[in-house]
Amino acid sequence: MSGGTQNTPDAAVEPFDAVDVIRTKRDHGAVPEDALRWMIDAYTREYVADSQMAAFAMAVLLNGMNRDEIRVMTDAMIASGERMSFAGLGKRTVDKHSTGGVGDKITLPLAPLVAAFGVAVPQLSGRGLGHTGGTLDKLESIPGWRAALSNDEMFAQLRDVGAVICAAGSGLAPADKRLYALRDVTGTVEAIPLIASSIMSKKIAEGTDALVLDVKFGSGAFMRDVDKARELARTMVALGTDSGVATTALLTDMNTPLGLTIGNANEVRESVEVLAGGGPADIVELTVALAREMLALAGQPDADVEAALRDGRAMDAWREMIRAQDGDPDAPLPTPRETHTVVAARNGVLTRMEALPFGIAAWRLGAGRARAQDPVIHAAGIDLHVKPGASIVAGQPLFTLLADDDKRFERALDALEGAWEIGTDAPASTPLVLERITA
Amino acid sequence: MSGGTQNTPDAAVEPFDAVDVIRTKRDHGAVPEDALRWMIDAYTREYVADSQMAAFAMAVLLNGMNRDEIRVMTDAMIASGERMSFAGLGKRTVDKHSTGGVGDKITLPLAPLVAAFGVAVPQLSGRGLGHTGGTLDKLESIPGWRAALSNDEMFAQLRDVGAVICAAGSGLAPADKRLYALRDVTGTVEAIPLIASSIMSKKIAEGTDALVLDVKFGSGAFMRDVDKARELARTMVALGTDSGVATTALLTDMNTPLGLTIGNANEVRESVEVLAGGGPADIVELTVALAREMLALAGQPDADVEAALRDGRAMDAWREMIRAQDGDPDAPLPTPRETHTVVAARNGVLTRMEALPFGIAAWRLGAGRARAQDPVIHAAGIDLHVKPGASIVAGQPLFTLLADDDKRFERALDALEGAWEIGTDAPASTPLVLERITA
Repeated sequence: MSGGTQNTPDAAVEPFDAVDVIRTKRDHGAVPEDALRWMIDAYTREYVADSQMAAFAMAVLLNGMNRDEIRVMTDAMIASGERMSFAGLGKRTVDKHSTGGVGDKITLPLAPLVAAFGVAVPQLSGRGLGHTGGTLDKLESIPGWRAALSNDEMFAQLRDVGAVICAAGSGLAPADKRLYALRDVTGTVEAIPLIASSIMSKKIAEGTDALVLDVKFGSGAFMRDVDKARELARTMVALGTDSGVATTALLTDMNTPLGLTIGNANEVRESVEVLAGGGPADIVELTVALAREMLALAGQPDADVEAALRDGRAMDAWREMIRAQDGDPDAPLPTPRETHTVVAARNGVLTRMEALPFGIAAWRLGAGRARAQDPVIHAAGIDLHVKPGASIVAGQPLFTLLADDDKRFERALDALEGAWEIGTDAPASTPLVLERITA
Repeated sequence: MSGGTQNTPDAAVEPFDAVDVIRTKRDHGAVPEDALRWMIDAYTREYVADSQMAAFAMAVLLNGMNRDEIRVMTDAMIASGERMSFAGLGKRTVDKHSTGGVGDKITLPLAPLVAAFGVAVPQLSGRGLGHTGGTLDKLESIPGWRAALSNDEMFAQLRDVGAVICAAGSGLAPADKRLYALRDVTGTVEAIPLIASSIMSKKIAEGTDALVLDVKFGSGAFMRDVDKARELARTMVALGTDSGVATTALLTDMNTPLGLTIGNANEVRESVEVLAGGGPADIVELTVALAREMLALAGQPDADVEAALRDGRAMDAWREMIRAQDGDPDAPLPTPRETHTVVAARNGVLTRMEALPFGIAAWRLGAGRARAQDPVIHAAGIDLHVKPGASIVAGQPLFTLLADDDKRFERALDALEGAWEIGTDAPASTPLVLERITA
């Protein structure tokens, strides 16, 4: 048996040893600031191996990190790449981040709605992987629209239009990119210090003045447990505040799909309905709640958000934003070649509609991707015709599956087995926005 | 954020998913037998990545394994390679394993001593890495002696001589070989289920009838804490028993170097003194205690072990064993080119002599290796002139450093800073063999 690695002559080349850092966390210690910065830097340089970082990540997941360690970890990930600045913009910048859910298209109406009040919204977004969709995938349903902008293009659009939704460049927090891919295959995704530092390193490096977090809990969320979601929200609010980014979080329910659409093109259509003053009640409620928080952080606590949806100002901002990225806001959206509608077998009340299986079903229909290099099918997904609480009569359509190939319906229906329920009593009503968390 | 890997289409090729196995252990569950067998097999096939196994190993270290899981893990590692059998030998076979210490040359006198009673001792040994020495390195001090034997040569020597100390072939438990190297660099060495399955998979695959374990605790041992060492001993005794190998363990003190020599050639010289009926009291005590346990498991509980040391039978077996592997038992052993003797600065009693720093110092003098491919210097090491409890006068030699290059003395002396103490009161005497653990 050996106790050797930490004493080998070669270790003198580097100021710290990965095994010592791992052992410190393994044995419930706090990793000293310089050692933790070295660990992230050495991992970015590929001196620290994936296997060593995986063991460290598992130790962090099981033994936690204190607030100082999470701050240092976040700082070290920011330091691994470039930092953006919107200092010359002459406007307040406010960003929003959602931990991800099923049917979560809120960014689409939200960014132009907030921009309509003269605030800059730099929304660097991602693509979907697994059962949660990606904002860029949704917007790419719009003919001509492009996700990739140079920093100069982004800056100009923020100045002239106010709202930008575009792809994050690879220069922001590259350490996080490598670490996130590793966590995905090593069962270490669900560590609050790692989730918090991953999200916040990118948002802080982006250079926003303020940030509103939509931290979701429930079956379709990343954190099923509300207490864990609350802990994550508090950790991120503290991190943002410590780094000079004014940060507020809303804790929101993700047990039921948001709105009546899950997919890409259908989610854009629903977003436009909201911008036209309509749309499903839950989407409107969450969009308005998040817009109020963002505008409050931008110094407009009394902004009349609903008015901007009613009077077309938000819609105007949307059309400008889409056009600025070469999209045609008036072009018809893709429609599916095949549809399959599921109808109610009995009379009653819809008591339950589980977000996760609906998300998986939409993904299997082609709305999402299994591997990063796969394309998505923009017309694929699910349109819901009812939501929990609705009275149902036998034969009534419940939802419609959308696909380009009817062979996809079977596996989607497999995923939906037991995912909804028709009972006799209306379900207890639960608030969509459970809590507001501030520094 | 993604929840994807376990649902990707490709996962259908393999019956289990590494992320699911990792999550089960991470969340304090017991990994089902078929999933755990798959994990070890898939790791051996390199389908499961080092990073995944590292995360799993950390989860095992922090959350433990139950007795069934440890048994399955051990079985799976045995199944990764070949199994040996001594069934046609016509003799009882008994092996011994030490968890490793400083100055631990017990295998050298022990194997021929037990063989002198007509028992076969198939001692597959390793080389040293870090501060604990390797039995094969010590024996290679003897001119001509070779560690590598074919299975046929080993079988013939067990039949004709009884004692064999040789290198373990790469065919035994190859999964363990890969996993051990990974644990060494990921801070996951100190996990009792992993240590126990690592040691026992090789011993069970080797095909011995019985096994005596020397499980050490203290500053020079792998397990510093006596309770952890006891847990490890109990786990291994249970594993051996469950697999049909009669297994006993002794829990022994490794706070002070064993005997008066630390190195290679000097440890051989001391072993020969023991076989000649002399030698330091602690080496004789432990050799005799382990020989009694081995002979009891081989059906000779009343064997007069001391007599075989006194009357030359053990020495005869030693000479035969060395000759059978082309060594010359009468050839002079290598001697060091340079020596440096440390003397006492004051009168008093030697109250403490810490095994770990003496082990590290001997290693730095060249007796051990930092990397697996490095050679060892057979004449290097440390000769002790006194042990704790001895009365000391100022100017009296305490120990002598042995090296081939006097540049090595400085770093060795650095390691020895504070490693011994001369006080006024004799230290409390502690038993060398603390406990005996049986099924």
